[in-house]
Amino acid sequence: MSEKTVKIGLLGAGTVGLQVARILREQNRELSARAGAKLVLSGVAVRDTGKVRPGIDSALLTSDIDRVIDNADLVIELMGGLEPARTAMLRALQHGKTVVTGNKAVLATHGPELNVAADTHDASLYFEAAVAGAVPVVYGLRESLAGDRINQVLGIVNGTTNYILDQMSTQGWSYEQALAKAQELGFAEAEPSADVEGHDAAAKCAILASLAYHTRVSISDVPTKGITEITPADIAQAREAGYVVKLLAKAERVMVNGQEQIALGVEPTLVPQTHPLAGINGPYNAIVLETEFAGRLMFYGAGAGGAPTASAVLSDVVAGAGHIANGGHAPRESTYAALPISDPGLVQTRLQLRLEVSQQIGALSQVLQACLDQGVSVASVRQPLVESGADQATLFISTHSASRQQLDAILAVLAKSPLVHRIASVLSVEQ
Amino acid sequence: MSEKTVKIGLLGAGTVGLQVARILREQNRELSARAGAKLVLSGVAVRDTGKVRPGIDSALLTSDIDRVIDNADLVIELMGGLEPARTAMLRALQHGKTVVTGNKAVLATHGPELNVAADTHDASLYFEAAVAGAVPVVYGLRESLAGDRINQVLGIVNGTTNYILDQMSTQGWSYEQALAKAQELGFAEAEPSADVEGHDAAAKCAILASLAYHTRVSISDVPTKGITEITPADIAQAREAGYVVKLLAKAERVMVNGQEQIALGVEPTLVPQTHPLAGINGPYNAIVLETEFAGRLMFYGAGAGGAPTASAVLSDVVAGAGHIANGGHAPRESTYAALPISDPGLVQTRLQLRLEVSQQIGALSQVLQACLDQGVSVASVRQPLVESGADQATLFISTHSASRQQLDAILAVLAKSPLVHRIASVLSVEQ
Repeated sequence: MSEKTVKIGLLGAGTVGLQVARILREQNRELSARAGAKLVLSGVAVRDTGKVRPGIDSALLTSDIDRVIDNADLVIELMGGLEPARTAMLRALQHGKTVVTGNKAVLATHGPELNVAADTHDASLYFEAAVAGAVPVVYGLRESLAGDRINQVLGIVNGTTNYILDQMSTQGWSYEQALAKAQELGFAEAEPSADVEGHDAAAKCAILASLAYHTRVSISDVPTKGITEITPADIAQAREAGYVVKLLAKAERVMVNGQEQIALGVEPTLVPQTHPLAGINGPYNAIVLETEFAGRLMFYGAGAGGAPTASAVLSDVVAGAGHIANGGHAPRESTYAALPISDPGLVQTRLQLRLEVSQQIGALSQVLQACLDQGVSVASVRQPLVESGADQATLFISTHSASRQQLDAILAVLAKSPLVHRIASVLSVEQ
Repeated sequence: MSEKTVKIGLLGAGTVGLQVARILREQNRELSARAGAKLVLSGVAVRDTGKVRPGIDSALLTSDIDRVIDNADLVIELMGGLEPARTAMLRALQHGKTVVTGNKAVLATHGPELNVAADTHDASLYFEAAVAGAVPVVYGLRESLAGDRINQVLGIVNGTTNYILDQMSTQGWSYEQALAKAQELGFAEAEPSADVEGHDAAAKCAILASLAYHTRVSISDVPTKGITEITPADIAQAREAGYVVKLLAKAERVMVNGQEQIALGVEPTLVPQTHPLAGINGPYNAIVLETEFAGRLMFYGAGAGGAPTASAVLSDVVAGAGHIANGGHAPRESTYAALPISDPGLVQTRLQLRLEVSQQIGALSQVLQACLDQGVSVASVRQPLVESGADQATLFISTHSASRQQLDAILAVLAKSPLVHRIASVLSVEQ
C-alpha cells in the first residue's frame, strides 16, 4: 500500500454521516487499498459537540467548520440545506481541496458557482450521493456516457413518493393512508412536503439535466407537480388502460423551431406497464437514459437511507483520494452546450383528464368542443356507467400530443363550464 | 482544450470497430473535450487491408499489428478470440500503453496474465465493453462499489439466449423456432453454440466474479449449462408456479465449513416474477448486485450490438486518454481476497425436475423415496391430469435447498428407474 495519507474532514454527522464514519473505520484497509492512500478521518464538524456519536472519537468533534476544512485534504459535506453548506464547500474548493457531497439542494441551486470554484482552483467536486442514493447514475452521465449523446432522462428519483404510489396501487389505500404508513416505516418525514410536492425530485432533475445536456439547469427551471392529488380511482383507471402512475423527473432534448432545447418537468405520469420504470416498486429509485449509441440504459437501486447513501459517498471518497494521491481530478463541469430551457407552455405532452361532469346531456360534447377549439385531438373517451338517477358522472379523456399552453387553455374552459363539476385529476402520459 | 494529443491504435475493424472509428470521428470534438486531450486515430490493424472500410482513411489500414501498437498511446483491442489478441495486448501493456478491450474470451482465460503485465509496467487495462455491452457494470464493480461488499451477482448477460427464452415465453415457440427467428433478426449467429450453450455467459461470469470478490476466477471455474433443452412446457409450468425461465450467470459469496467461498454457475433458472430480473425482456442484459451497504443495485441495457458496445469502448477511451493526459491510471486488479472457488458438488441449490413417468402405480412414491434416501426434502409435487389409458404422465418435483451432489445422486437413481421414462428437464430455482 502507498505511504500517502489523505486526511478526511466530515461536515455533519447525521444518519448518513454516522454511516460514512463507521464504514470508513470498519473497511479502512480495503478503502485505503482501493484509493492507493491511507484514509484518515481528521475532523468532524457538528452543531452539538456534546451529543455522543457512537463510533466517532470525541476528540475529532468540533463545531468549527473552518477548522475541519482547513485541516483536511478531502471534505465530505453532509450537512444538507443551503447554508452553511454552500459557504463551507466554497471555502474548501477555493483552497484546492476535494469536496464530496450528498447535498442535492445546494447543487441544484448553487451548482454553477461551486463548479466554477472547483475549476478555478483546480479542485474536485463529487456528488454521486446527491442523486438517487447508491445508484451510480451520476457516474453514468459524467463518465460512462462521455462519448454518447443523451436524448432523454426519465427517472423515479424519490423513494418516498414511489413507496406511497406503490402502496396506493397494491393495497388500494388513499394517499393519506399510504403517507401515514410511509411515515410509520420511516420512508417519509413528519413534514413530507419536500417529497410529496416534488421539490426533492425537481432538485435531482436539475442535477441530472445539467449532466446529461452540458447545460446549467437550476431547480427553478423545473416545473413541478407532486402526488398529493392522486386518488385510488386514478390508479385503478390507469391500470385498466395498461398504465401505472409514477412521479417522474423528465429531461428531454427537444427541437423547437429548428433549435435544440431541453424540456423539463417533475409530475405524476402514466407509464405503460411494459416500460422498465413501471416495475420499479417500493422505495427504490431508477433512472432510464435514452442515448444515441448505447440505446436504453437503466440504473436501479436504493435511492435513500443511511448505508446506501454512505456507499455512494465512499465511492466518491475513494475516487477523490485516488486522484489526490495519484494525480487527476474529477470530471470538469461541462456546460459548453448551453441549450436553452424550453418554455414550459410550449412543451408537448399528452394528458389524461378525469372530470366529474353533470349527467345532463351535453357534458361530453362540451368537453370535446373545448378540445376542438384548441386544435387538440382526443385519443380516447371513457364514461363508466353510473346508477340511473345519479346527478354526476365521471369522464376520462385522453388527448393526443399538444402543448401545455393548449392543454391549459382547455382546462381553463372546462373549469368555467357549469356542466363540469370538477377537474378531478390531470395526468401526463408517457408513450 | 488541452494541447495534448493521445494517439489511438485500433486492432480489428469489424462491427464494433467500425462504429468506434465512426463515433471517434463524428464526436471527436466532444470526446476530446471530455478526455482533456486531442484524440487521434493513428492506425488500424486489419486482416484484409484490401477491403474498403467506410469512414476509415485507407492510409491508416495495415495488417501489421505491432506497428499499430508501437505507434499508439492507447490501443483498442477488438479482434476477439484468444490469439493474436493476447499477444497484442501483452505487447501494448509491456510498453506501458493503455489498453481498452471488449474481448471477454481473452479476459476470462488470460485475465491474470494481462493484469500482472499492466501492474508491472504501470499500464492501464480497461474492459467495460467485455461484459454486458453498454451497461456500465464493470465500472460499478471496479469503482463505484469500491467501499462496499458484494454478496451476490446475478446476471442476464447474454442477449441471444434472453431473446430466445422471451420469444418462447411470449409466442409459445419451441427453442428451434425461437433460435431461427433470432438468427433471422441478427440476434443469434449462424453457429450459435457459444451463446446457447452458455459459454459466452460463463466468460462474463468469470470476469464479474473476479471483480466482485477480488479473486482470480477463470472461465474453467464456472459450471455451465445452456438453454438448448428448455421446452415451452418448462416455461408454461414456470409461469403457473409464478416464475420465468432465465439463463443466469451467478456468483455468490457463501460460507462452507466456516470459510468464505465463491459459488459460481451459469444455468437456466426459475426466477420469481417479482424479481427485477424477471422483467428483463428481449435481447437486453441486466445485472443485479446484492451488496452490504448499497443494498440491491441493478444495471440494465443493451448487452451487444455495434453502437452500444462502441459506446462502452469509448467511455473507456475517454477515461484512459484522460489519465494519459492528466495522470492517474485504471483501477488495479485486486485479487487480495483470493477466496476459494466452491466445489460445484457442494453448492447449495433448489431444483425443479420435470419427469416423464410411467402411469403405473408407484412412480411418484419411487421418486419421493429417491429424494428421501438422499436426505433431500421435497417442496412440492404436481402431476397434471392425463387422459385415461395414456401410458405416460408428467411429474413436476421441486426440492428444498440441497447440495448438487445430493441432487445429482437423485437424478442418477431416477435415470435408472424403469418407472421414470425420461428426466425431461432440470432447472435451478432462485429464491
